[in-house]
Amino acid sequence: MTRKLRMGMVGGGRGAFIGAVHRMAANLDGKIELVAGCFSSNAEKSKLSGEDFFLDPSRVYTSYTEMAKTEGALPLGERIDFVSIVTRNDLHFPVAKAFLEAGIHIVCEKPMAFSLAEAKELKKIVVESGLVFALTHNYTGYPMVKEARAMVKAGKLGRILKIVAEYPQGYAVGAIKQQADGAISNWRMDPSVAGVSNCIGDIGSHAENLARYITGLELEEIAADLNTFIPGRTLDDDGSMLVRYEGGARGVLFASQISTGDENNLNIRVYGEDASIEWHQEHPNELIVKFADAPRQVWRRGNSYNGPEAAKYTRLPFGHPEAFIEAFANVYLAATEAISDHLAGNYPRAEGYDFPDVDDGVEGMAFIEAAVASSKENAAWKPVHGA
Amino acid sequence: MTRKLRMGMVGGGRGAFIGAVHRMAANLDGKIELVAGCFSSNAEKSKLSGEDFFLDPSRVYTSYTEMAKTEGALPLGERIDFVSIVTRNDLHFPVAKAFLEAGIHIVCEKPMAFSLAEAKELKKIVVESGLVFALTHNYTGYPMVKEARAMVKAGKLGRILKIVAEYPQGYAVGAIKQQADGAISNWRMDPSVAGVSNCIGDIGSHAENLARYITGLELEEIAADLNTFIPGRTLDDDGSMLVRYEGGARGVLFASQISTGDENNLNIRVYGEDASIEWHQEHPNELIVKFADAPRQVWRRGNSYNGPEAAKYTRLPFGHPEAFIEAFANVYLAATEAISDHLAGNYPRAEGYDFPDVDDGVEGMAFIEAAVASSKENAAWKPVHGA
Amino acid sequence: MTRKLRMGMVGGGRGAFIGAVHRMAANLDGKIELVAGCFSSNAEKSKLSGEDFFLDPSRVYTSYTEMAKTEGALPLGERIDFVSIVTRNDLHFPVAKAFLEAGIHIVCEKPMAFSLAEAKELKKIVVESGLVFALTHNYTGYPMVKEARAMVKAGKLGRILKIVAEYPQGYAVGAIKQQADGAISNWRMDPSVAGVSNCIGDIGSHAENLARYITGLELEEIAADLNTFIPGRTLDDDGSMLVRYEGGARGVLFASQISTGDENNLNIRVYGEDASIEWHQEHPNELIVKFADAPRQVWRRGNSYNGPEAAKYTRLPFGHPEAFIEAFANVYLAATEAISDHLAGNYPRAEGYDFPDVDDGVEGMAFIEAAVASSKENAAWKPVHGA
Amino acid sequence: MTRKLRMGMVGGGRGAFIGAVHRMAANLDGKIELVAGCFSSNAEKSKLSGEDFFLDPSRVYTSYTEMAKTEGALPLGERIDFVSIVTRNDLHFPVAKAFLEAGIHIVCEKPMAFSLAEAKELKKIVVESGLVFALTHNYTGYPMVKEARAMVKAGKLGRILKIVAEYPQGYAVGAIKQQADGAISNWRMDPSVAGVSNCIGDIGSHAENLARYITGLELEEIAADLNTFIPGRTLDDDGSMLVRYEGGARGVLFASQISTGDENNLNIRVYGEDASIEWHQEHPNELIVKFADAPRQVWRRGNSYNGPEAAKYTRLPFGHPEAFIEAFANVYLAATEAISDHLAGNYPRAEGYDFPDVDDGVEGMAFIEAAVASSKENAAWKPVHGA
Repeated sequence: MTRKLRMGMVGGGRGAFIGAVHRMAANLDGKIELVAGCFSSNAEKSKLSGEDFFLDPSRVYTSYTEMAKTEGALPLGERIDFVSIVTRNDLHFPVAKAFLEAGIHIVCEKPMAFSLAEAKELKKIVVESGLVFALTHNYTGYPMVKEARAMVKAGKLGRILKIVAEYPQGYAVGAIKQQADGAISNWRMDPSVAGVSNCIGDIGSHAENLARYITGLELEEIAADLNTFIPGRTLDDDGSMLVRYEGGARGVLFASQISTGDENNLNIRVYGEDASIEWHQEHPNELIVKFADAPRQVWRRGNSYNGPEAAKYTRLPFGHPEAFIEAFANVYLAATEAISDHLAGNYPRAEGYDFPDVDDGVEGMAFIEAAVASSKENAAWKPVHGA
Repeated sequence: MTRKLRMGMVGGGRGAFIGAVHRMAANLDGKIELVAGCFSSNAEKSKLSGEDFFLDPSRVYTSYTEMAKTEGALPLGERIDFVSIVTRNDLHFPVAKAFLEAGIHIVCEKPMAFSLAEAKELKKIVVESGLVFALTHNYTGYPMVKEARAMVKAGKLGRILKIVAEYPQGYAVGAIKQQADGAISNWRMDPSVAGVSNCIGDIGSHAENLARYITGLELEEIAADLNTFIPGRTLDDDGSMLVRYEGGARGVLFASQISTGDENNLNIRVYGEDASIEWHQEHPNELIVKFADAPRQVWRRGNSYNGPEAAKYTRLPFGHPEAFIEAFANVYLAATEAISDHLAGNYPRAEGYDFPDVDDGVEGMAFIEAAVASSKENAAWKPVHGA
Repeated sequence: MTRKLRMGMVGGGRGAFIGAVHRMAANLDGKIELVAGCFSSNAEKSKLSGEDFFLDPSRVYTSYTEMAKTEGALPLGERIDFVSIVTRNDLHFPVAKAFLEAGIHIVCEKPMAFSLAEAKELKKIVVESGLVFALTHNYTGYPMVKEARAMVKAGKLGRILKIVAEYPQGYAVGAIKQQADGAISNWRMDPSVAGVSNCIGDIGSHAENLARYITGLELEEIAADLNTFIPGRTLDDDGSMLVRYEGGARGVLFASQISTGDENNLNIRVYGEDASIEWHQEHPNELIVKFADAPRQVWRRGNSYNGPEAAKYTRLPFGHPEAFIEAFANVYLAATEAISDHLAGNYPRAEGYDFPDVDDGVEGMAFIEAAVASSKENAAWKPVHGA
Repeated sequence: MTRKLRMGMVGGGRGAFIGAVHRMAANLDGKIELVAGCFSSNAEKSKLSGEDFFLDPSRVYTSYTEMAKTEGALPLGERIDFVSIVTRNDLHFPVAKAFLEAGIHIVCEKPMAFSLAEAKELKKIVVESGLVFALTHNYTGYPMVKEARAMVKAGKLGRILKIVAEYPQGYAVGAIKQQADGAISNWRMDPSVAGVSNCIGDIGSHAENLARYITGLELEEIAADLNTFIPGRTLDDDGSMLVRYEGGARGVLFASQISTGDENNLNIRVYGEDASIEWHQEHPNELIVKFADAPRQVWRRGNSYNGPEAAKYTRLPFGHPEAFIEAFANVYLAATEAISDHLAGNYPRAEGYDFPDVDDGVEGMAFIEAAVASSKENAAWKPVHGA
């Protein structure tokens, strides 16, 4: 490219956590510029957010449909090349649809849609559009997660026997005693906005996606026990499940928002016949590799012994830690690679791209719905049928 | 006491892992002396073991029934005060019964019996005998586990919401490929000797007991998915389960012998409404305490801020680590306290004793059988009815 | 500001490590845009770098003096507001001087100058100019380092007794056996370019600055033993020293480039009469606080219990790790605050700014020269006289 | 042996920390029995201690000279085979001398003597006696320390470049403010009892010995800065030093008793040209091995990949942690091997024994005196001339 890619944003105005993350991720490498946005359906709030980001006021919108139409009508090179969708869950689908119809590429927050049916519908639209659709399962962006995936792919672990994926958070526990509202985003508790699940939808789906990304295995069936500890809520704030993968791997997956004092404690352990790995999101620059009869290894980001998959998404030398934003930016980096290819008429490239896509979104929604269905039947096994 | 307690041992001859551990645990504090044993049903092996331990040959037996009879007939102060049973599972019951009937106190390896029915029968015998019966769920002997229990008891965690207990080992994974026999004790794989379970019986039961010891909560029901990865075996070598405790706590418990590269990775996390704790057996001198909105704390063994429960079973100052043998010795220390009281006519003391007992043994067998039954019905919920 | 600040860069063309870091740090928050640069004295290389960063070719220079003159002549709002100097050490002074004389603010790499004399001269120029000068001792940008400093300032540690600051790296060890060139930047070994020291100048000075930033204490005297393990070199690649601070604190400081397998292992421990802290750059989101008789604490970034000093420079919620680039960006954030104040006529604000400045640069050079002088006299004590 | 070795003890009565450790270490393996002691010069205290340990009152002494004479006169097999000396420093020499003259082997606490001159004199006596003399530099007993030593010996680290040995404790810091007496053993502060140093003598000497044990390198010279932070004391409670080893290795060694919140934080890092190791006493079952360009390794105790040196002194399988007492017991195990050989007429065996001996004791005293002498001359370099 001889210019920066032009980005628009829907959602993510002043004070929104995830919108700010997307902007930092997009800014980091100096290859993307934010030029338009519909940051809020509140006109004043959207305007002020536009000022915060030094945007031309004429490109700060209050309606995403208007934005899609107006931007889509601008010539290439002036209009936004892609839009980042960072709204609440129920809007992911309609917003994505509007921009895809306007010929604009998409980077979208997870879960991809409000329901599995919607997710499948969105997939159809994406496929038909031929446009780029990246889903920000951002934890796949960590270099040592990519290294883990490469190890599995290269057969270093042998047959996978067991997977333990966990994602305990504790931020909402205060709400049990009403000591505080205990919630970063209250809409997550509202089924009409968040969908059928809160905790599993928000973070359990990250754990599921991470396991899938690293191992390449599809879930066959799950038996889930979801819980709602916070009084007055209908959606889950905690859940555990037994999981069975294709090929015979077994394990557990659990997520929680009421695990007091845990912060963003996403961890995964993959046990293979020949070796095992473990990775901890809160110490992301290390990948622990274990053997039955050899010293444990700690693979560290940025070393020359890391493979090309990790190296490609590494910005700093070893010992200079990278973290959450850099991993998030890697989803953007991979997505902009695809978008640039598209603009150059070379999309898709034969070797593919390293970002979560619409298939991950469908799989994620299938997982969420299976978990809820299983829990409703007292942890009966439910198949996970995604794409 | 004005003399050391006299200990006998059944099982645990030359080369046996757990017998050696029991002897070191008994030796450590200089308050117990090993004076008799039936170390093997093989006369030569028993004799050689007796020589290893500098025993009077006349008190080295080949038959435990003979040993029980002979020792029981000796006068107090000469005969063994108690016997340590470190045989394979199927002998725990008959050996314990024989010595109880001879009026001799018991320290017994877990699982307590071959079946729940047998465990209940043994409980009856113990209660009727009025004798001391200690079960070596040794992980309860760690000072920081005792500190954890005291914290829960004192209400520092508030209502318990979630418990994650895990015990992955990897020592048997080699057996999958027959690279090695992969087994420390092959009898554990034999249902006629080990009972209905291998992995859950051997180590899952430790995880269950540890959770119960720390929280005081009884399991209500479990949904278990047990696996046999090693070809040609009938008993489980891995298993995961959803667990529900009385009072509403939920969680997961898993154990494994095929988790490549994990050693003896017993870990527990207890999440309460007000605080949470986590403890890692491989770093046993620390107890991590987490809060919703205060710095995480690391409680370390041997400090004056620790409570009396931990302090009583602490031998060394802070920073001078204690470990597995010392924890094991704490079960012996508590049991000998009870035995000494018994000899002095003061048994039981009002405040009780801090060692796992026959009730833990019954509960453990109920847990094992419920896990196996659940797994046979594809992880159907099964109640855990112990004592 | 109603616009982004305009940044220029001298040095840091294609392939340069630290230049790329500066650009990412500047990009991150979307408040700065790179608009001009003299990326290399090689015209072709500078041009290509300019293309990489999507710059207007007319603002890509081959001579920094020309750049200073040309940019300085542009009107405010068009010209660069500040320049980032990321050249080799010997150019820091002349480049800074040229831009200061053109009325342009400075962000400069460390060590600030080639010699203490030059550093003092630069300080004079900065003071006379009334312009902003920020020195990228980037490790002070970490939120938990700021928390540590706030703790010391608030007296939570009591009187400081001992400081252990260490910075072992191992990247150059291969050069001992000539297995590899073992050097990221060979000019660091050349006294005519790097100055009197390699290892102490490059990273020892970071350890010194970090200790000073956290404790506020000035070094009184040091006794240094510097080493050159790599054959054929004249400058140090390793060094250790005894240190004495004003007020009676004592300690050690060491740095190394031949500590095999260490990456960027900057660590600091500050022991006070009432509490102690330790911080590890490779796990930067935690600050460990130790007491004589209370549980150890782990303060974690992003929690509400952190003070305003850390909170101001925190972008993400707890558990979403921040790392090197974010810390680096905090130096930029603080510097742009000062530059914005200057542009608005409000510089300096009463409460000051939180970035290392020209005084830190002088102190750093005094430290480096004292270390070299001490080592030349076989570790004789040498005073450290900075500002 | 067909019987347990008979042990006597001088010092270490009720309430003494280190005496209790020696007894547990001696008890652990069931190969030693305590049969006599002079636990205190206070007759009542010695008598009560004897009762605690179930000793025959006729073998509980008040005078060590009487004990040496009386025990020495008993026939072999009845008399003590060796004596453990756990008195304060100033008595090590006279007590050792008395028992050596009575033909009794010695296990002795460190530092070996009151002064270097005394240490050299003691060495002469030991050599002439032909008896066994073991010095309890107990940290050498840890299996992973033995593994580290074996690695260095096998050349896996290549030429040693740098050694960082540290031993910060914080237990005495309270004494600075007189909040508490801050002292476990006040006699350590008394030069007429402890000798020329407190902190360096007590724990700095452990760090020195550990470095020597692992690397096999002798110190050439040191430049020490010792401090006395506690008002009213004359001996050091903290100290740091630059160190130079034969063969060109350089480094730092520091120890402290006023490092608030540190417990028994002995750590060592040895950097070689090809690999480096680090070991942390508070997590003793792991040895970290680092390379310039390969994943970091964590060697864990009890695995089959460990060498015979560690395996010989390993009691438990991997993951079942061993700790301080087991390491201490390893010194006893090695010493009793030598004593048993002596009793059997096979002393010394060709391959030697793995316990610290009288040469370590001389070297340790030389180190202590050099440190004190250096500090008195403001950290002038002083040679370390031991054996």
